Amino acid sequence: MVEKRRILSGMRPTGRLHLGNFHGALVNWLQLQEEYECFFFVADWHALTTDYANPEFIKENTYQMIIDWLSVGLDPEKCTIFIQSQVKEHAELYLLLGMITPLAWLERNPTYKEIQAELHQKDLATYGFLGYPVLQAADIIIYRANGVPVGKDQLPHVELTREIARRFNYLYKQAIFPVPEPLLTDTPLLPGLDNRKMSKSYDNCIYISETNEETVKKVSRMFTDPKRARRSDPGTPETCPVYAYHRLYNEPERTENIASLCKEAKIGCVECKREMAEKLVEALKPTREKREYYEKNPDKVKKIIEEGTEKARSEAQKTMELVRKALTLAD
Amino acid sequence: MVEKRRILSGMRPTGRLHLGNFHGALVNWLQLQEEYECFFFVADWHALTTDYANPEFIKENTYQMIIDWLSVGLDPEKCTIFIQSQVKEHAELYLLLGMITPLAWLERNPTYKEIQAELHQKDLATYGFLGYPVLQAADIIIYRANGVPVGKDQLPHVELTREIARRFNYLYKQAIFPVPEPLLTDTPLLPGLDNRKMSKSYDNCIYISETNEETVKKVSRMFTDPKRARRSDPGTPETCPVYAYHRLYNEPERTENIASLCKEAKIGCVECKREMAEKLVEALKPTREKREYYEKNPDKVKKIIEEGTEKARSEAQKTMELVRKALTLAD
Repeated sequence: MVEKRRILSGMRPTGRLHLGNFHGALVNWLQLQEEYECFFFVADWHALTTDYANPEFIKENTYQMIIDWLSVGLDPEKCTIFIQSQVKEHAELYLLLGMITPLAWLERNPTYKEIQAELHQKDLATYGFLGYPVLQAADIIIYRANGVPVGKDQLPHVELTREIARRFNYLYKQAIFPVPEPLLTDTPLLPGLDNRKMSKSYDNCIYISETNEETVKKVSRMFTDPKRARRSDPGTPETCPVYAYHRLYNEPERTENIASLCKEAKIGCVECKREMAEKLVEALKPTREKREYYEKNPDKVKKIIEEGTEKARSEAQKTMELVRKALTLAD
Repeated sequence: MVEKRRILSGMRPTGRLHLGNFHGALVNWLQLQEEYECFFFVADWHALTTDYANPEFIKENTYQMIIDWLSVGLDPEKCTIFIQSQVKEHAELYLLLGMITPLAWLERNPTYKEIQAELHQKDLATYGFLGYPVLQAADIIIYRANGVPVGKDQLPHVELTREIARRFNYLYKQAIFPVPEPLLTDTPLLPGLDNRKMSKSYDNCIYISETNEETVKKVSRMFTDPKRARRSDPGTPETCPVYAYHRLYNEPERTENIASLCKEAKIGCVECKREMAEKLVEALKPTREKREYYEKNPDKVKKIIEEGTEKARSEAQKTMELVRKALTLAD
């Protein structure tokens, strides 16, 4: 039997997930869990790199996010779900990898200055923020993962992880860590209600955890083609956010049909949205039912987290034994 | 009953200790264990900040150093002896403290650039080396120590620890960490065989673990007053390294007497050294006997380390529970 290759991926605990998160990452995770041995974790320590001054939300966000993961179909029989801060070995490896990581590698990290500029209202010139790629490297290689699913923008991080893994293997003359490959994933960009990128901070999201009624109401107020001012104007489906949803949630044939009707002004936006909302709510039905189930059964969620964490910890411990031996520290 | 105040102190695993180490730190530790609740640890993770590329010696050095500690009189009934890398909670707290530690605090650390310059043959521009004051802070405050014995040169480190403790308490609105006080210790500087500072790297040391014969032989070759070229020249005991040893190991009256004789050229260096060697060997007798005992009983040493580590870990865990609660991370 060929062993499955191992994948690691994590998310910061941003709380309840929206459809942008779903299509941007979870759809991919759902595929990965079928093909690989997957470890999926909530990066709650990473959340501290930017939110150390206000960590109150992290615990609840972690919990809500995991419920969403389970609701969309992450299956604890197929993948390992855990919380970073509950596997202390990540901290030990972070410390050890820090010893061999040149400061220059971290300072040239392109996202370092970018995020600092983006979040200029927070004081991010901290030791922890500078070192988050070291922690990320520890997260990945402690499971001796073969691959990491990433978008293009995160490629430099994986490259840094690869350099750190190589440097460790080189210094201690043992191939303890596989050098993980980035699995580039192309994800359809799902626009938010206002046709910008769907993002909590823009308040333009459809959440997995909201009610069908909320979803229907939000869709009814969605932006459409701004050039179609009147019902009688022909529309441009390619740039209309509502059409982007039809593509994902309506039947392909009907979707093409809608495009024609829109271009010929034979279907109005109200009607088009109503149909889309119906399809969307229908597609989300099993997910929302599952969510209701897990909301009512917090013990099941806790048990899934506990078992996942136990498994992750046991794998991390195996690696740390090799690492400590390589460093010849006291038994 | 008034609780004893708690002290924490550590040493890098430099291996077998010499008399410079003994008078520079251990004599003080022996006093401290009588008055305070003391935690003494081998800072083996700290050794990696400078010796990450050659860690092979760390394990044996750790062991030999602890045998020396026990031989000079550190008493496991009175103090807690442990190894840093065996209490993983230090790594977790290091990670968390890093999140709140401004880079500027570390970059302005005066020893940072000094040691880099001193050890210029090693590449010390690493993340771990920059962060060693953060690890040091974690080492200290994880035991909620009230005091840290330091020499003057280490005062800036303790100040950094105090700032980090204060910042944590401030950010999370709880006085979890006592702000530790530096206990300034004045230690007599014991010269090496060549009248420079006693240091392994100068190869001018008298080791606790060497035989009496080796000690006698080393003393016989010791530097004396360079201006006393002939037996008939008057000497200057104040600048003679042999006299510094008389002061510590001979009777006070006899020591004064020797000073007069030397100044009047009434005692020769050979004779003076022979007497000093005798006194020194005599003083070291109980220490060397104990060392022989521990060398023959490695299981006892192991047990002492195990019990100390267990106790330290349990204290560190208590603190970490408070810390995690303050940060409201997942249970």
